[in-house]
Parts: sequence; C-alpha cells; structure tokens
Amino acid sequence: MKIKKIINDPVHGFISISSPLILEVINHSYFQRLRRIRQLGLAEFVYPGAIHTRFHHAIGAMHLMTIALDMLRNKGHFISEQEYEAALLAILLHDIGHGPFSHVLESVLLPNLNHEKMSLQVMYLLNEEFEGKLNLAIQIFEDTYSRHFFHQLVSSQLDMDRLDYLQRDVYFTGVVEGKVGFDRIIQMLDIVNDTIVVEEKGIYSIENFLNARRLMYWQVYLHKTTLSAERMLIKIMKRAKDLWVNGYSLSITKNLEFFLNAENLSFAEIVRQFLTLDDYDIWANVKNWQFEKDFILKTLCQMFLKRNLFRMEISSSPFSEAHILEKIEKIRNKLCFDQEEASFFWESSTISNAGYVSDAQNILIRHKNDFLLDVTKASDLPNIEALCRVVTKHYFCYPRNL
Amino acid sequence: MKIKKIINDPVHGFISISSPLILEVINHSYFQRLRRIRQLGLAEFVYPGAIHTRFHHAIGAMHLMTIALDMLRNKGHFISEQEYEAALLAILLHDIGHGPFSHVLESVLLPNLNHEKMSLQVMYLLNEEFEGKLNLAIQIFEDTYSRHFFHQLVSSQLDMDRLDYLQRDVYFTGVVEGKVGFDRIIQMLDIVNDTIVVEEKGIYSIENFLNARRLMYWQVYLHKTTLSAERMLIKIMKRAKDLWVNGYSLSITKNLEFFLNAENLSFAEIVRQFLTLDDYDIWANVKNWQFEKDFILKTLCQMFLKRNLFRMEISSSPFSEAHILEKIEKIRNKLCFDQEEASFFWESSTISNAGYVSDAQNILIRHKNDFLLDVTKASDLPNIEALCRVVTKHYFCYPRNL
Amino acid sequence: MKIKKIINDPVHGFISISSPLILEVINHSYFQRLRRIRQLGLAEFVYPGAIHTRFHHAIGAMHLMTIALDMLRNKGHFISEQEYEAALLAILLHDIGHGPFSHVLESVLLPNLNHEKMSLQVMYLLNEEFEGKLNLAIQIFEDTYSRHFFHQLVSSQLDMDRLDYLQRDVYFTGVVEGKVGFDRIIQMLDIVNDTIVVEEKGIYSIENFLNARRLMYWQVYLHKTTLSAERMLIKIMKRAKDLWVNGYSLSITKNLEFFLNAENLSFAEIVRQFLTLDDYDIWANVKNWQFEKDFILKTLCQMFLKRNLFRMEISSSPFSEAHILEKIEKIRNKLCFDQEEASFFWESSTISNAGYVSDAQNILIRHKNDFLLDVTKASDLPNIEALCRVVTKHYFCYPRNL
Amino acid sequence: MKIKKIINDPVHGFISISSPLILEVINHSYFQRLRRIRQLGLAEFVYPGAIHTRFHHAIGAMHLMTIALDMLRNKGHFISEQEYEAALLAILLHDIGHGPFSHVLESVLLPNLNHEKMSLQVMYLLNEEFEGKLNLAIQIFEDTYSRHFFHQLVSSQLDMDRLDYLQRDVYFTGVVEGKVGFDRIIQMLDIVNDTIVVEEKGIYSIENFLNARRLMYWQVYLHKTTLSAERMLIKIMKRAKDLWVNGYSLSITKNLEFFLNAENLSFAEIVRQFLTLDDYDIWANVKNWQFEKDFILKTLCQMFLKRNLFRMEISSSPFSEAHILEKIEKIRNKLCFDQEEASFFWESSTISNAGYVSDAQNILIRHKNDFLLDVTKASDLPNIEALCRVVTKHYFCYPRNL
Repeated sequence: MKIKKIINDPVHGFISISSPLILEVINHSYFQRLRRIRQLGLAEFVYPGAIHTRFHHAIGAMHLMTIALDMLRNKGHFISEQEYEAALLAILLHDIGHGPFSHVLESVLLPNLNHEKMSLQVMYLLNEEFEGKLNLAIQIFEDTYSRHFFHQLVSSQLDMDRLDYLQRDVYFTGVVEGKVGFDRIIQMLDIVNDTIVVEEKGIYSIENFLNARRLMYWQVYLHKTTLSAERMLIKIMKRAKDLWVNGYSLSITKNLEFFLNAENLSFAEIVRQFLTLDDYDIWANVKNWQFEKDFILKTLCQMFLKRNLFRMEISSSPFSEAHILEKIEKIRNKLCFDQEEASFFWESSTISNAGYVSDAQNILIRHKNDFLLDVTKASDLPNIEALCRVVTKHYFCYPRNL
Repeated sequence: MKIKKIINDPVHGFISISSPLILEVINHSYFQRLRRIRQLGLAEFVYPGAIHTRFHHAIGAMHLMTIALDMLRNKGHFISEQEYEAALLAILLHDIGHGPFSHVLESVLLPNLNHEKMSLQVMYLLNEEFEGKLNLAIQIFEDTYSRHFFHQLVSSQLDMDRLDYLQRDVYFTGVVEGKVGFDRIIQMLDIVNDTIVVEEKGIYSIENFLNARRLMYWQVYLHKTTLSAERMLIKIMKRAKDLWVNGYSLSITKNLEFFLNAENLSFAEIVRQFLTLDDYDIWANVKNWQFEKDFILKTLCQMFLKRNLFRMEISSSPFSEAHILEKIEKIRNKLCFDQEEASFFWESSTISNAGYVSDAQNILIRHKNDFLLDVTKASDLPNIEALCRVVTKHYFCYPRNL
Repeated sequence: MKIKKIINDPVHGFISISSPLILEVINHSYFQRLRRIRQLGLAEFVYPGAIHTRFHHAIGAMHLMTIALDMLRNKGHFISEQEYEAALLAILLHDIGHGPFSHVLESVLLPNLNHEKMSLQVMYLLNEEFEGKLNLAIQIFEDTYSRHFFHQLVSSQLDMDRLDYLQRDVYFTGVVEGKVGFDRIIQMLDIVNDTIVVEEKGIYSIENFLNARRLMYWQVYLHKTTLSAERMLIKIMKRAKDLWVNGYSLSITKNLEFFLNAENLSFAEIVRQFLTLDDYDIWANVKNWQFEKDFILKTLCQMFLKRNLFRMEISSSPFSEAHILEKIEKIRNKLCFDQEEASFFWESSTISNAGYVSDAQNILIRHKNDFLLDVTKASDLPNIEALCRVVTKHYFCYPRNL
Repeated sequence: MKIKKIINDPVHGFISISSPLILEVINHSYFQRLRRIRQLGLAEFVYPGAIHTRFHHAIGAMHLMTIALDMLRNKGHFISEQEYEAALLAILLHDIGHGPFSHVLESVLLPNLNHEKMSLQVMYLLNEEFEGKLNLAIQIFEDTYSRHFFHQLVSSQLDMDRLDYLQRDVYFTGVVEGKVGFDRIIQMLDIVNDTIVVEEKGIYSIENFLNARRLMYWQVYLHKTTLSAERMLIKIMKRAKDLWVNGYSLSITKNLEFFLNAENLSFAEIVRQFLTLDDYDIWANVKNWQFEKDFILKTLCQMFLKRNLFRMEISSSPFSEAHILEKIEKIRNKLCFDQEEASFFWESSTISNAGYVSDAQNILIRHKNDFLLDVTKASDLPNIEALCRVVTKHYFCYPRNL
C-alpha cells in the first residue's frame, strides 16, 4: 500500500500511514478530540514538559504495532492484511474513551463507568458510521477474535500501549531513568500456541521494562505533587457538583453541566455528550469558578490556578488519627468551617503499585524447545519475583500555611 | 547561594534555582499563567508534539542565561550578584506579556499593542508588588542600563531567547535538522566595548544557527498548515467580534467578552484583564461556538475543531486576480454568501522571513587583536550574506471541496 | 526473508540482516578488516569520541539503503529481490578498498591508485570467491547497470553513504550542529526517468544537508588539528620510506615493508597485501619507530604519540614567502638540519571545499507536473547557489616552540 | 580560574578545564597512552560502536566530579581550591594503570599485580615529575586523606567512575536500557559525618542505577560473545608465552617480549615498560602471529581476526564432566592434539556478578533528621535487597564446527 500520510513524532521519528480507513478514523472528530486530552493529566505541575496528549500516544502505539507485526511476519507467522489493519485500529482506539484528565475525573464524571467500557462504546459508534469496517478491530479489543495474540499486543502486561507510553512519558518528562529498550523487546517477541512469548535472551530487557515502569509510577504518575493536584481538582469538581445539585446558580459550560446531573439519562446520550468533553472544558470552568461567590469553590480554584497545592504527606504506615484530627481542626479554625466544609480541604487514603501482576495475562519466556515459563520463574535473577509484591503507601494532604 | 528548587527540563536537564526572588516570581500567578500559553500556537496541527508552553521556554532561556553569565565571569568579566539576578529576571519575564496564541491573536485582541509593550507593562505591575526589586531587570529589558551587553543577551539576533526556543522547538516538533550547538555558541561569546561578540572560530556555529532558524521558519512557524489554522482562528475571532459588536447574543466567557469591546477602556484595566486570558479561554469559546446559531461562526468552529482546515496555496509570485475571484465565486455560490460573508472563508496575503537582519543589533565576530566585523563581512563563506535577503511568499487560502 | 542477524547500532538502533549472502560478506575477513580502520582517521585528536570505524559506517549505509528501497517500493516503483540485495551489497562494499587512515596515507602507500579503484578490485576478488553472486552489485557500483538510479543511491551528491556518515560523525564527535534529517530526506526521494529526485517540499532539508556537510568539513574533517596530525603522519611515512629505500635497516612489520617498495610488483599482489593492512599496523610501526636511531623519524614519532603536533596556521590568502622562510630558518638552526631534512618538519599547501558541485550528478528537485530543476535553480532561497563556490584556504605548519 | 581548554564529549557535551596542572597531566604521554586502550576491550565484537577509550572515560569522570563538587559547595560544604583540584586529579588518574585490554590480559601480563596497584605506581612516578603536586590527589586515591568523602567520590559503589562509565557505555553500545539519571543522582548527594549520603527522594534513582549496572554486566560486559573473544585472546597470549619460554623463535614486538619473561625484573622496570604497552601492540602481534608456523598460535590468531570465535555455552548449573570430555575428545580427534595442546581450544569456568555488595563502602540513604540507613534497608521496595545476591553462571567454550 502506498503511504498516505506521514506524521512527525519526536519520539519515534516519521510515522507512515498507508491505510485510507485508518486515516479516516484519525481525522474523525472523536479521535481529533484526543488532541485535547493530556496523557499525564496534572503531572505537568511537576514536569513542565509532560503535556503530551493521548492523540500522540495512540498514534505512537499504532506505530509500535506495525513494527511488532512486521517482525512477527519476518519470523514466519502469517498475518493477513485485514488482521494487520484491524490490529492497528484496535490499538489506535484503545484510549478513545478517555475523558478530561483521564483517570482522575472518571469517578466524578462517570461514577458507574470506566474508560475501557467507554472506549468500547465509542468504537461501536464509529463502527456504525464506518459500516462495520471496525468489526475485527473490536473483536481484537474485546478478545473475542480467534487469534488471541492480537489482543495481547493491544492489552496485556507487555503490550504496545505500555511500550509507547513509557517511552513517550520519559521523553516529555525528562526522567531518563525510565528509558526502555522497546525495539529490543519487540525484536524478542514471538508467538507460541497463539500466545505472545519473549525469547530467553530478552529476559534482561523485560526486567528492565518492569523496573522502569515501576520507577515511572513512583517518580511521575504517583508523584506527590501530581497526586496533590489531582486531589484538588477532584475536590473542585465535587464542590461544583454539590452546589449544582443543591440549586446554586453556578456559571458552567453546557457540556459539563450535563455531567453534574447525568445519573438519570440514557446511556447513549451520556456517550454522545461525553465525546464533547475534553481538558479545555475543565480548565475553562475552573478559571471561571475562581470568580464564583462560594468561598470553598473559589478558594480551591484560585489555589489550583496559582499552583498553591495541598501539602502532601506520604508514609509507608497509616497516619495516626490524632495527626489527622489535629490538621482538620486547624482547617476548621482557620476557615470557620464545619466538618463537611472542611472535608473539601483534606484527603487521606492510599496509593499502591505492583511492578508485575502474576495473573492470567502474564509474560511468558521461551526457553529451549519452546518450553514456556512465567517471567518470575524464568529468570535466575531474584528481582522480578520481588516486583510482584504490591507496595502500598498512605497519603494525607491539606493546605499549606494552616 | 543554596539551591532552592530544581526543575526537570527534558531539553536542558536539571535547572537549579537559587534566588528566592526568582522563585517568588515564578510562583506568581502572572507567571504560572504562561503554563497555559503554548509556545508555538497552532503548529501542533502539523507537529503533534509541539505543545510546549511559554512557561517552559522562559525558564529554559533563564537557564541559558546562567550558563552565559558563568562563562563570561570565567573569561574574567566582572558581573555583580545583583546584575546576575537582574539579567535572569529580565529574560525570565521577556515573554510575560504574551496572550493566548501569542502573535496570532494579538492583532484581534490588542489592536494597538504588541506583546513586548505588554511584557513591559506586566513587569511594572510586578515591580510594584515586589517593591522595586525588579528595577534593574526592567532597565536591562528596556536597554537603559549602563552595561548594554546584558540587554543583548536578553534581546538581539543572538540572545538566550532564540537559543532556547530553537533548541526547544526542535525537541518538541522532532524537526532534528534545526538542531543548534547552543552550548558551543555560548562558549564562544565574549564582551568587547560593552558589546557581545563571537570568537572567530565560532563562525560556523553562528552560520549554522542562522540557517537553522530560517529552516524552522519555513518548516514550522510558517508551515502552510500552521498558517492555515492561524488564519482560521483569526476569522473565528473576527466573526465573533462582529457579531458581538452588532448586538448578537453570543455565548462567551467573561474575560474574552471584555476584549471584544475593549477599545474605550483604560489601559490599566486592559492589562489587568489581559492577565486572566490564556489559550484555554479561546479553546473553550471555540468549542462553545460550534453550537451557535450563526452559520459562519458555527461552520468555522466546526471546521477548526475537526482539523478540516483551509487549503493553503503558497507561491513565490502573487496570485492572479482571476484565480482569487474564481475561488471566491465558488465560495459564494456554494454557501449563498454575499461578499462580506464570503470574506470569512478566504484570505490572501504574504509571509516573509530573513535569516539575518543587518541592523544595529548585528552579530559581531572578533578577529585577531579584537578587530570586530559584522558576521556577514567576517566570514569568507558566502552564505551568511545570502541569508540577509528577505524572502517573501504569497499565500491564498480557502475551504477544501468547494 | 527471515531475519538472520541483528546488529545494535547506537546511531540507527537495531539493524536487521535477512540475506544469507550479505551475512557471509560481512563475515568475510576482507570486511571484518574494516573494524580496524577508523572512519575519521586522526580526528580523534580533536574529538576524542570520533573513533568509529568503516565497518560500522558500511553497515549503517546499508541500513539506510533498505529504508530508501522500501520507501521507493511504497511509492509504487518495482524493485526486484535481486536488485534489492545487489543495491545493499554495493553500498556495503563501497568502502572496502580503504586502507589504513583512509585518504591520508593513500598517496604514500598507493601512489598510483585511489580507494575507489581499490574497492572495485576487492569486489572483483570477492565476486570470484562468491562465484559471481556479486555481479549485479558490481554493475550498480560501476554504474553499468541499466537502472541508473541504483548507482545514484550508492554514489552521488545525495547518496546513502553521505547520509550515513554525516549522521554517524555527528554522533561520535558530538558536533550536534551537523545533524541532518536523514529520514525526512529519504522520505522525500522519488524516481523520475530513472533518476533520483527530491520532492519540492524537501528543499529545506536538502539545503540543511548541504550546509551541515560543509560545516562538518570545516569543523571536523579539515579542522586544523586533524590536518596537523595528518601532515605529521605523512611525514613519518615518507621518512620511513626514504630511509628504507636508502638501505637504512629499519625495524618494520612485514606487511608495511611491502608497501615501501611496492612499485615493481604485480597489481594482484599489491591488492592481496593491501588487504592485510589496517590502522593497527601503522600505529604499531610508529610506536616502534619512536625508538629508532634516525633523529628525524624518532622525533616525529615521539611528537605524534605525545600529541605534540605541528602548529597549524590557516589563512584565506597565501602566506608570504618571507614568513615561510623565517620559520624554515628557525627549524634549521634549532635542529642543525639541511634543507631536505628540514622539509620533514614543515608543510605549506591548500585545502578547499565546496558545499555542492554543479556537475552531472546534481540534486534534482521535482516541482509540479514532474518538472525537474537543479537544486540551485529550484530554490527561491539564495543560499544553495552560494554553496557552490569553492572555498580555498592556505595552511602552513611547523613545530611549536621553535 | 579561566578556562584553558574545552573538550567536546558526545556524552556530556563541552568539558572545560581550567587548571594548568590538570592540563599538563592530560598532555603527559602516560595519560595520552589511554587514547590507545579501549574501555570495553573486546565488546566491540558484539556492539560495533563500543570502541571508546579510557582516555575519554577518565576525562568524563573528572567532569562529573566537578558537577558533584560544585553541587556540594552549593549545599554549603566547604571545599578548598586545593582539595577541588586534587579530587579531580584523583579521578582523572584512577585508571592510569590499565594495560592493553584492561582486565582481560592482566592475569597474563602482570601475574602478580592488578591495575589499581599499577595506577598507584604510575601516580607516584607522575608525582615525582610534578614535584609533589599530586600528593593530595594520591592521598584521596589511597584513602589516607582526613576527609574521607573525597575518596568515596573516586571509589565506592556510587562513585563518579561508575556514573561515567555506565552513561558512556550506554552511549557507545546503544543499549539504551542501561541509561541512568546521573545528574539526578549527583543532585541527591550530600555529606553527613564525612560520608557521602543520598537524600531519601533519590531512592528510585539509586535503585535504577543498581539495576542498570547489573543489566550492563549481563548484556554487555559478560555477554557471551565478549567473553568468548576474551578467552580466545588469553589463549593466544598464553600460547605465545609458552612458545617463547620454550625457546621458539617468535616474531614479537620489543615491548611485549619484555612481558613474556618479566618475572625476574625489578618492579620499577616493569612499570616503565608497562607504560609503553597499549591495545595496538597486542593487535599488531596477533596480526603478525597469524603467519607464524606454530599451528596452534596461527590458528587461534586467524580465528580471532576473522571473528570466528569459540561457541560459548552458558548455564546456571555446572556442565557435566561427560559433556566437557566429549567436546575435548572432538577437538583432539579433529586436530590431532594431545591433552595440553587441546587445552588452548576450550575453557570452562564461571562468571558472577552482584548488583550491590553490602560491605563497608555501602550506599547510605538519609532519612528525616539525618537518620542514615543502608540502601537495602532504607527502601520499602524489596528489589534492592534482591540485588545483593551474587548470581553465578557457568560457561564452557570451544570451536564451532567441531
């Protein structure tokens, strides 16, 4: 197929697109909307370069998919043109259901949904428009297609999604330690019994990949400043919702207003409205609300916009009740709040991460004679096993200068 | 001075900040606002990675200033602590007056101002707040300080601003050809008679810098897709303004509304309001206007959001009147417009760029015995002279599929 | 074809080799010998990282050839499997005739040959061993194959050789200004009338490529320290040859001895012996000669090994005879030399470079309707034309501390 | 101090040298000799770019030392100008005692010495020449200086040596997974009780550093092809030595001959001769020996030069005696060797590596209130502890195609 379009990606270089269907999907307004949703939400408060978008990531992940599929063909596996295109579409659309600030606001905006389910809904919508041309892509995404390994390349503990976002997040944050040998890893992939496996000599690269991902979790995704900004944004949205529900005349954009009282609406309508939302709507409303009369909403928005974030305490053991109560008391005294009002100014909960999860979707290493072993068993190095343990940390945040 | 804060920059690595005053300025809401103004406006429509902000650039340029000043001290030039801090502040704030989409919307939002003047106004405001601590920085910025070379480092044809933005734009667009040896250039700088000069053996690096900058102009800043998106955004803002002025009930955010009828307001008020505006306000309004009743405004916004941009013709000679009239006729026929309505759907004008301007602020090369020559005279290579010629191109844009 | 071997290249990443024939050629001792010939000769005296070899470069250039051929196939041009492999072999072997320190010692070791002719001889030898399997590759290299464009990709002003060595030399020297958008350039290539052309929108990348190459010439390849070291090494070899010819009992390795009196030998024998020589032989002899009795040879070798190089004067105008005579006089007085002896301690000549040569192998730009123009005519930018002028400089070198 | 020289390093960028003494040391022939000793010995057989030298590494490590010392001064620690220069000299000279192919040939050439002891000897020699100016540097290197932390920066589990070589080896091999955030790590260093400590929030970077170093060990330094080439080179040297000792008339360069019967010579003489040796001597002799009459020596040299290396088997459990004997039998039968002759064509032993050694020089993490903990105890992550375990592997190598 002839090249139809070339996209310049600072991470992977030139990305060529040959399929007219893929080009049409990229040009669709649902996909263009991803230009307005940042990959790392509020991590830019710590890493000023981290403002890359899901648009960019989705195309990058698709590019890695082409490398992986070409390599598998080179190793002698048959992949039809139709499967090839479908796999590209599946990874291209895997994040299409993300809303503004991705995971952060999911719980507030879509209490009973998550972005994976939403992605699937949007794929269905697109499939209608494209008259069934996305059928196979959807099967791969849902893992109902007979050749399971395609789904693994889209979604597993070693999928093109992760390989792209790690590389990309490293590039835009500047956290060079997270660098992963994604091309080496892809070269090491193979298929055995319809399952993606890694050749034995790729073991160090896999270990490095798992370590790098964990490092990015603690250093970037769960960085205490990121976390603090996220908590604050959630508080803002919750306050706005409370005010709205209680009849306060809130200045708000139409498409966001919809989501403050979306509970009783039809699912189809929710999806349709959701696709009009992006990061800019949230920012515009927050900027607007800094001039609202409600003291709590106004204050939170002003703090957020000036980057005067909550102080974030992190600990490997739970915080004492006394410590928490003392801070709450200070908040109440300083701001003359009751318990409920004060609750908008503190939060205490946990964060956790495991480098590797030994579940059904585990990473298999191929030893001699196609003998397969889970990566934790395959390595004679003790580290990967250690990566399985879930590390949980406790956090407690509240305003500075109480 | 002890390091107070470290910022992680994917372009320059770790940037250390030691001055408490500089830290306070960075934390000020006027400066934090730069987080929400992109460096390259709409170039992201061509280069998806080009979404870096003026916040990031300003801090990067300040970092290059520390390298330049340290190097000049190493070469034996006396620079006091006060001058050092002031030069850093001057470059840090050189872009503080930029509004949403920088140059693009200047003519619409601030018909009688430009961002340099605005930057100065904001510095005055900040100086009041900081009780005169920015006096010296402002003198350097205005070029009224006795030691002229500081101003040259902030603003000239070889200043820290340009060295940073070239490097940064290359990093985020992925246009690697624009790469410049900024550290080599800085090492080659010196001061003669209170003027920044370049040592003779730096001549190739300077030539490369001028070539790279010109390449970035044609390949990125004046790329036809960037240009097309910018024209479209200007049309949108003009239409909105026309509607507003003519009493159409336009749904619009408060702070932007202000600028649609700002002509009769006091200058102080304009500055104050301007500082509430950023890219997000424009995006939020454009997103809102796609649902307006006015056909022209609605259509332009929908086209913009779906990246269905004007077709852009570029030519080194002017377009024939016949060619232009033919297209306008097609617009009118297709959309049933009168002349004035149709004017929102096409534009014809020129763009131009010169690699180097032989004016008062030229780049001087130091030959043996401190003999100084303009870079165009100094080189025995003919290219730099060629770079002085202004290259002008004509453009004409209109909707696709007429 | 299945991937047979993967080579890790810090410049291009993973390089896959699928052809068993190509793998055999790479494993041949003639090709392995390139591991011991540095790409940039003595430039390491200025740029300590510049110690990459022709082995590495040849494989990198072959890799770029695969990208170019794949891209041309994508644009609809038919390239048979046999042509594909032959083009890879031609570029892989284009430097096989290089001897120790490449261009530098050519005039001393092979007075009547050059490395291109030698490359061809070695290809003939290999072709015999491989029973004619290199026939087509040799035709492409000699430009006797009916499809001319293959030769252009191997050898022209915009060939894969130059694209690779620029990129590679930048990487290993650290002269980042020389960076070239080699992937963009390759994407812009096409074939018209059996000739490689560049699409119009690639014009800036081509200009940048020509500028970068010129910069590398003056900054690296013709750097005065590189030049000085090269002159010194030539003096060393000439002195050794003189001594040998005059019956001095010189300690020397067998294979080098051969080349000090090679004039009367058969061509076949010369080639065979030449293929045993590499940089290490020269180094080993120079190291040995620092203990010789001959004062001139010993002194030159000691200076070379301690990096006590000639002082190199460079000027755009010729040096005055008086200046040269004065220095020669000082050499003679200090070292009690006669004219001929002194001649081993100074040199005066010229170096020159043109960014672009308007000859038969020029770079063609494709405008609308397949209208072709030489790049100097095609650009509305004046720089490329300027690049055509040959810049010549005069140099004069002699020992420091006379 | 004014900058005296700038060295262009592709890894760290520009490296400035201000101290005249340091410049003199770098220009000394003992130091220039490091230009001819590769950092990674024979790893180039796997990674063609890995041909960087100890010269380059030593200067890079010195550069990191300046960053570390500047940072410590910024944190308020007093470091005198004299101490500063001495610390730079100590790290600059830490590898000055390395011989050809570094660790590989140590056991053959210097049976009773190692390169650390040799480095010290060379420092003593230089100190005499420089009239005691290296006294303090030597004290730091020997760890007899009162301020212990300087020695730690030169030699410990987190010294500037390791930070540089990891970064450099990654750059030249292209094994990007080994990338380490060396600037982040340096920023996290501090001094408590005259001991280098790492701030708590640097824990992930340290973990990443230990992981990266271990990865480089298995992927590069102990790569089976590197190992195979090293074993072969040792066999070559041993055979040459045996032949020499037994009176065989071996063609050999003077300075290497010395080391084949060095046992009875004075230590001073050994050191003096050792400083004339470098990689080139070994290569020149191996190239010469491929034409020797002795079948074993000739064969090994030819195999080595053609990169026809031993097949290398690696296993986590010991090889069975039967397996080894079977291969030896094949060698003997094929080549008509006796036991002793055959021993030049196989080797069986072990390699091992631990990511971190819990000994006296451990890495300390500073928690709140200057509370110090070993990094294995400090982390609430289980990985670092796992890194302490020594991993041992068994290898067995012999010719291919037996």
